Amino acid sequence: MAEERIWTAALLVIGDEILSGRTQDRNVAQVAKWLNLQGVRLAEVRIVPDVEARIAEAVNALRGGHDYLFTTGGIGPTHDDITVDSIARALGVPVVVHPKAKASLEAYYEARGGVTEARLRMARVPEGAELIDNPMSGAPGIRVGNIFILAGVPHIATVMLEALSGTLEGGRPILSRTIGSFTPESEVADLLREVEAAHPGTQIGSYPFFRDGRVGANFVVRATDEARLEACASDLAQRLREAGREVREEVV
Amino acid sequence: MAEERIWTAALLVIGDEILSGRTQDRNVAQVAKWLNLQGVRLAEVRIVPDVEARIAEAVNALRGGHDYLFTTGGIGPTHDDITVDSIARALGVPVVVHPKAKASLEAYYEARGGVTEARLRMARVPEGAELIDNPMSGAPGIRVGNIFILAGVPHIATVMLEALSGTLEGGRPILSRTIGSFTPESEVADLLREVEAAHPGTQIGSYPFFRDGRVGANFVVRATDEARLEACASDLAQRLREAGREVREEVV
Repeated sequence: MAEERIWTAALLVIGDEILSGRTQDRNVAQVAKWLNLQGVRLAEVRIVPDVEARIAEAVNALRGGHDYLFTTGGIGPTHDDITVDSIARALGVPVVVHPKAKASLEAYYEARGGVTEARLRMARVPEGAELIDNPMSGAPGIRVGNIFILAGVPHIATVMLEALSGTLEGGRPILSRTIGSFTPESEVADLLREVEAAHPGTQIGSYPFFRDGRVGANFVVRATDEARLEACASDLAQRLREAGREVREEVV
Repeated sequence: MAEERIWTAALLVIGDEILSGRTQDRNVAQVAKWLNLQGVRLAEVRIVPDVEARIAEAVNALRGGHDYLFTTGGIGPTHDDITVDSIARALGVPVVVHPKAKASLEAYYEARGGVTEARLRMARVPEGAELIDNPMSGAPGIRVGNIFILAGVPHIATVMLEALSGTLEGGRPILSRTIGSFTPESEVADLLREVEAAHPGTQIGSYPFFRDGRVGANFVVRATDEARLEACASDLAQRLREAGREVREEVV
């Protein structure tokens, strides 16, 4: 069997509000899950402040090492929205007004007080960019090369991801199967290692939890091949039972 | 006035479970808020998979550029817990068993089936390390040089941070004041920029929201100096009112 091509993406989260702890990020998990459905693996995330040089540096570090780079945050109309300028700087291209983005903003704001200079900031893109539809608020996302520039507000990022669904080249999604058990993971560490080793092409992650004063763990089996996944998960469940451990569905 | 020394930290989140989207990260926000109380600014976050080379590379990229590096995740007893080995590799030191960590694990597991080889994995540290107390589960956190190695389970990370409170050298915390308004941020973009420019040493972030079908934004003023913070926030509130905008407390 030829080695499977693995498609990867990085995500750059831009925003002082995340780094200050004021806002709980919601985009890492949603971008990760969406990417997996496209057959692309989220392989790295960076979170940087609203500083042009720091954004540009991260963009250049990440765009070459992965098939795709996604960014969230910093594409609104205010002075702290500097993502477009920073990415243009990273790419060494000028910022231009995209006529279709301008038309979209004019249509959206026609009944909302008209476009202003601040609102037209959201039509600015790095030269050579295409738009990503945003049916929610008129200000589009931006694609330039392998970089996808999304909004920071999670439900706007969601509609931009929906607009991109099915458009990326990818491989097979990672499938997973979770087995929960009220067993301390330290008591089955050898068993987990042995089962993983016996099933090439699979990985087993062990995630401890505490519920109602009891210790347990969710064991997450991952593979791109469904038959391998099932074989590994069945083997794990059987060996846990043989070791006198109860086995149940994922404990949430 | 001498320029203020700014203390910074980076955070490295280690874990396939975060990158797969399966688990919602809770540590970025809690580490960020805790660091700010210590007078240290969280300046960068990276999230990497459970791969030794990727962890070691990120550790070496981050530990030099910041006063402190924190890591979360990968210090449990199972085969996928490789943080200690990866950090030792990054530092070029061997992994050793810390006698106090071993004693702590022996005491904790005395009434829980005794220590096993898997459990003793949690006594392994990079050579030269000190321990961070973990009153919750017997497996300590680890400090080696400017690197602080914390658990990934958020409430265990919390008790480790509590154990470290007041022990780091830092500067002044960033103070913040939030003003909410049911105003589209694009209508006050110029005003925000002008107020920020008129108050050196302050920053204004603008975070839009949608509530009950209405658009608004929270404007977050940040400064390390309380007098400057108050002056900027008052000025902002006054200018918003003069522009006919309602002003209220933060909209959550």
